[in-house]
Amino acid sequence: MDILTHLEAVIAERITAAPKDSYVASLNARGLPVIARKLGEEGVEAAIALLSGSDEDLVGEAADIIFHLLVALNARGLSLADVRAELERREGVSGLAEKASRSE
Amino acid sequence: MDILTHLEAVIAERITAAPKDSYVASLNARGLPVIARKLGEEGVEAAIALLSGSDEDLVGEAADIIFHLLVALNARGLSLADVRAELERREGVSGLAEKASRSE
Amino acid sequence: MDILTHLEAVIAERITAAPKDSYVASLNARGLPVIARKLGEEGVEAAIALLSGSDEDLVGEAADIIFHLLVALNARGLSLADVRAELERREGVSGLAEKASRSE
Amino acid sequence: MDILTHLEAVIAERITAAPKDSYVASLNARGLPVIARKLGEEGVEAAIALLSGSDEDLVGEAADIIFHLLVALNARGLSLADVRAELERREGVSGLAEKASRSE
Repeated sequence: MDILTHLEAVIAERITAAPKDSYVASLNARGLPVIARKLGEEGVEAAIALLSGSDEDLVGEAADIIFHLLVALNARGLSLADVRAELERREGVSGLAEKASRSE
Repeated sequence: MDILTHLEAVIAERITAAPKDSYVASLNARGLPVIARKLGEEGVEAAIALLSGSDEDLVGEAADIIFHLLVALNARGLSLADVRAELERREGVSGLAEKASRSE
Repeated sequence: MDILTHLEAVIAERITAAPKDSYVASLNARGLPVIARKLGEEGVEAAIALLSGSDEDLVGEAADIIFHLLVALNARGLSLADVRAELERREGVSGLAEKASRSE
Repeated sequence: MDILTHLEAVIAERITAAPKDSYVASLNARGLPVIARKLGEEGVEAAIALLSGSDEDLVGEAADIIFHLLVALNARGLSLADVRAELERREGVSGLAEKASRSE
């Protein structure tokens, strides 16, 4: 199974744990503003890692962003499938545009 | 094909386009600080959308983060596969812990 | 008059302008989420300028942060005087702590 | 003395302390990327506080931003005076003041 899909399932499951036993449950118990803060901070950390960090740093920050993004989506009842659909929609549009321009 | 893998290939291909014809090529031509700025800003926008936006807003911002994350990884010669491997490594640790507890 | 105090007064005054005539009025008309987004983005831009920008870039981004911080405070009925008081309180504490440690 | 000017002097002085004895010295010892990260994160935290925090939270985050902004400026050999000058330039105050002084 795709790790992102797996991770999403793990997050959905961990939310029901006791906050003291699970980081995901703890984030959810603290509420959307804390999840939002973490998400924004991970964006900053990835940006800094891009400019000043090692490859390992950047990959770690990218993993952190994706993890917190999945937590955020879950907290709002959304899923990675929604984001995939949006990316497909966008690519479809530019894909069609590209195809159209090529056929000219 | 998975849209994320597809998008990553599209990004790698567009980099060779003329900056005026492609957003990806334009970002790369402007350099890492601009990519870093966009990545950090997308993190902020996703955080705000989580607190104040519609479902559609949040999904759109999540798509923006993933897109710019792929651009950032590509610009450093890294890939989503590296991030997947890191997430698997992290989950593997907790997965093993779970398995151990189940075998009791 | 101190430019920060002056700027704060200008912001308070401009809020009553038509949104089309004033950036401050426009920000306020669009609401707290837009002001929050701008504030967060300015933080990112200042961080990037610190790492990759010229002195002029960093000073410009610092000015942008302070401006949007004043807009944010104003939108919540707070003022720079409140922030000054908080900074004085903190410095007072550490000043006292320093004094106490010196008298040991 | 203005607390911001005072704080700036305190920061300049603390930099010479041992990193273990001073947060400012510790930040500087860890380098620009860490200061940049803190600055960006404070921007995110202020944005979240604007949307979801108490007045006290927002004032505290505003104080944090200003503090880290002064640390960032200092680390690049810049000062709040440079930012004030930029804000004056934008506001046109310096132009008006100049005109007034010339007409005397």
